[in-house]
Amino acid sequence: MKIYNESLTEMKKIVRRYTTQTTDLEVEKQVAQIVENVRAKGDDALKFYESKFDGVELDKLRIPDSQIEKAYQSISTDLKNALELAKRNIIAYHEMELQHGFVDAAQPGIIRGQKVTPLERVGLYVPGGTAAYPSTILMNALPAKIAGVDEIIMVTPPQKDGVAAAVLAAAKIAGVTAVYQVGGAQAIAALAYGTEAIPRVNKIVGPGNIFVATAKKQVFGQVAIDMVAGPSEIGILADQTANARQLAADLLSQAEHDKRARAILITNSKELADKVSKEVEKQLISLPRKEIAEVAIKERGFIAIMDSIADMFTLMNDVAPEHLEVQLTDPMQYLSSIRNAGSVFLGKYASEPLGDYVAGPNHVLPTGGTAKFSSPLGVYDFVKKTSFIQFSKAALKNDLKAITTLARTEGLEAHARAVESRFKGDEK
Amino acid sequence: MKIYNESLTEMKKIVRRYTTQTTDLEVEKQVAQIVENVRAKGDDALKFYESKFDGVELDKLRIPDSQIEKAYQSISTDLKNALELAKRNIIAYHEMELQHGFVDAAQPGIIRGQKVTPLERVGLYVPGGTAAYPSTILMNALPAKIAGVDEIIMVTPPQKDGVAAAVLAAAKIAGVTAVYQVGGAQAIAALAYGTEAIPRVNKIVGPGNIFVATAKKQVFGQVAIDMVAGPSEIGILADQTANARQLAADLLSQAEHDKRARAILITNSKELADKVSKEVEKQLISLPRKEIAEVAIKERGFIAIMDSIADMFTLMNDVAPEHLEVQLTDPMQYLSSIRNAGSVFLGKYASEPLGDYVAGPNHVLPTGGTAKFSSPLGVYDFVKKTSFIQFSKAALKNDLKAITTLARTEGLEAHARAVESRFKGDEK
Repeated sequence: MKIYNESLTEMKKIVRRYTTQTTDLEVEKQVAQIVENVRAKGDDALKFYESKFDGVELDKLRIPDSQIEKAYQSISTDLKNALELAKRNIIAYHEMELQHGFVDAAQPGIIRGQKVTPLERVGLYVPGGTAAYPSTILMNALPAKIAGVDEIIMVTPPQKDGVAAAVLAAAKIAGVTAVYQVGGAQAIAALAYGTEAIPRVNKIVGPGNIFVATAKKQVFGQVAIDMVAGPSEIGILADQTANARQLAADLLSQAEHDKRARAILITNSKELADKVSKEVEKQLISLPRKEIAEVAIKERGFIAIMDSIADMFTLMNDVAPEHLEVQLTDPMQYLSSIRNAGSVFLGKYASEPLGDYVAGPNHVLPTGGTAKFSSPLGVYDFVKKTSFIQFSKAALKNDLKAITTLARTEGLEAHARAVESRFKGDEK
Repeated sequence: MKIYNESLTEMKKIVRRYTTQTTDLEVEKQVAQIVENVRAKGDDALKFYESKFDGVELDKLRIPDSQIEKAYQSISTDLKNALELAKRNIIAYHEMELQHGFVDAAQPGIIRGQKVTPLERVGLYVPGGTAAYPSTILMNALPAKIAGVDEIIMVTPPQKDGVAAAVLAAAKIAGVTAVYQVGGAQAIAALAYGTEAIPRVNKIVGPGNIFVATAKKQVFGQVAIDMVAGPSEIGILADQTANARQLAADLLSQAEHDKRARAILITNSKELADKVSKEVEKQLISLPRKEIAEVAIKERGFIAIMDSIADMFTLMNDVAPEHLEVQLTDPMQYLSSIRNAGSVFLGKYASEPLGDYVAGPNHVLPTGGTAKFSSPLGVYDFVKKTSFIQFSKAALKNDLKAITTLARTEGLEAHARAVESRFKGDEK
C-alpha cells in the first residue's frame, strides 16, 4: 500500500487528486430516451426493455405475494435470525430520528408552527445479480416505515432463475408494499411517472449502476431522490496502539466492494504504517474478491503519516469519508474533532462491517466527500415539513407598517394591498 | 378568471396540465462552459464575464465592509425597523427548528448515537436589479446563522450604480460574512470551486434566473444546493363566508411576481367564485405590475368549484401549492387535512404577504408540486448528521454470527473476516 510522509498542506492536495467525478454523455442520452419511452408507453415500454436488456420476457410485472412468502419460507434460519436482529436494531436506532412538529403561541393573537408529514409513496430500487444485498433493503425500507410512509414500492431487475430468495425475504421482513420485477433506467422512469402497473411515487431511494444513477438524476424534480452513491470508502485514524492485522482487514472490507473503492489509513506511527501495508498484501492473497480489492488498494488506497493527532483529524475532515474508524485510545473523546464523516466507528471492536449489518445506524451514507454537507439516509428523508400561521386582526395590524414598507421597497404593490385589504371595511 | 365546475377526477387531470417543466439545452451548454472557465481561470474569468454580461469593469470583487456600513446608515428608519422586526421573528421561529444529536446506551457495552454538525461555509446568491429582495437575504442567511454555520458568503451581480443599499443593509442585519459583486453562472461556479478571491463553500442557496438555476444543478454533487425555485404559487381554499375582495387581493399578490406564477382558488361556493373572478379583474386595473399579473391570472390562474370541503382538500393536496390559504370557518381544525403545501395561512388575517415578510416562518418554499416531498428552507438545511457506534468485545461477540451470516450471504468475505479478526488473538 502506498505510504505518504508529507506535510498536511501537501497531503491535502494529494487527497484532492483522488476525488473523481464523471458524467457520461452517451449514457445521459440513452437514459433520456428510455425515460421518455416509459413515460409515453408505460408497461409496454417496460416489457420491451426487460426483454432487450435482461433477456427476460415478462408476462406480469408484479411479483405475487405468494412467491414472496415462499421465498421467505425458503431461506435458512440463520439468515432469517440475522435479518430479524438487524431489523430490531435498525428500528431501535431510527426511532430516535423521528421528528415532531412544533407550535408557538407565546404572542397574543399569533399562532405559528410546523407540521411534519410523511411522504405518501416511496420507490426502492434494488440491484439484481451479485450486487443484491438484502441488508440494503432493510436499511432503505425501515426508515420509511418508521416515518409513516403509506406505501413502499420495490423494483428489482428480473432474473432468469427468478429474483433471489434472500431479496424477496428481506422485502417481506422490511414490510415492503409491493415488488415489481423491472430494473435499470426504465424502472426509475416507471416510479417517477407511473405506468398502468406501477404507481407513481414521491421519492426514489436505493443504489444502482450508472444507468440507474443517471435516470435518478434526470427525474429529480419530478420526484425526490436520495443521494447518488459513489464507491465505498473507509478512513481509519489509528496510533501505535492499534492492531495492524485488524486495520488491514477493515481496509480490505471496503476495498472488496468496488475497484474504485477508497481505503485510507492516517496515522502518526510510521511503524504501524509499515505493518498495515504488509498485512494488507498478506491478507489480499486469500480473498475471494482479491481481484477487485487489489485494484482498489493499489489505485485509490493509501496510508498517510502525520505529525500529530490534530493533523490526522484535520486531514480526515478534508477527506470526509463515508465510514470513519477511530482506533485511538479512549476514542469517544475525539467525537468533537470529527466534522465530516458519514458514520463513525469508535474503538477496536467497532469494525466497519458491524455497521453495515446489525448495529442499527443506516449503512446508506454520503460518499465522495459529500459528508461535508450530507447525512446518512434517515427517517428525516421520508418526511417533509409545512409551516403554518394564524394571526388575529390586532396582531396583523401591529405588523402592518413593517409589511407594507418591505413590500413597497421590493416594488411589490399587490403584496402591500393584500394586507391592507383586511382593514378597509370588512363587509364581503 | 377561468372558472371550472368539474368532477374531482376531471379537475385532477386539469391541474396536471398546468404543471410545466422545461430544460434548455442551449443554456446548459453555455453554463457548462462558464463553469469550466471559472474553475480553470478563477478571478480572471469572473472579471471577464462581469464585463461581458453586466458591462461592469471590476477592480476588486469584494465589497468593502465600509461600503456595507454606509449602505446600512443610508436606509430609512422605517425600512430598518421592518427588517429588524422580520429578523426577530425569523430567529424566534427558526430556533424551534434546531435539531439535536442523540445517544443510546441502553444495551450493555453498546453506545450508538448521532451527532449534528453545522456546515462550515455556505454561499448565498442574491439576484440584482428589480428582483433584489432584502427580505430573501434574511430568510436565507438567518437559518444558516442559527444552525451555526461559520461563514456565509454572499454574491450578487454588480450594478452600474452600485449594489442596492437595501440589499447591503440586509446583508449586514443578517450577519453575512462577506459580499462579492459577481452574479450569474460565474458566481455559482466560484462558490462551488473557489477562486483566488472567493472561498469554496459546502452549500449554495438563494434564488436566481435560468443561468443561476442551471449552474446550481450542474455543480450539485460538488456542493449541496437548495431546491431550484419555480414561479410563485398561491392556492386558496374558501367557502361562502370568505371575503371576495380580500381573496382577490391575495391571488394578485402572487400573480404580480411572475408571468408564470400560479394563483388558484378552490371553493364550494359558486357565488364566491363569481365574485372573486370579478374582483380580480377590477383590482388588476390599478396594479403597477398589471402587465405581469394579468398574464399569470389569464394563463395559469383558475377557480375550481367542488362539491364538498373534503374534495377541496383532496384537489389542493394534488396541487401541493407553495402557499396555501385556508379561508374557512375555524380553519385550524383542517390542519390534519393538509398533506402537501409549503406554508399554510389559516384564517382571514393570515394574508399571504404576512408570511413573505415578518411572521417568522421561511418564505423560501417548495414550488411546482414539490411540496409533496420537499420542505421550506430551514435550519435543518444547514446541518448534517453523522452516526457513531462504540461496541465492547462482548457486544460484538453477540452479533458475530448475524454479521458473518449476512456478509457471506452477500458474497462479501472480507466483511466477515474483518469482524472475525477481533477474536483471533489480540496480539498486535
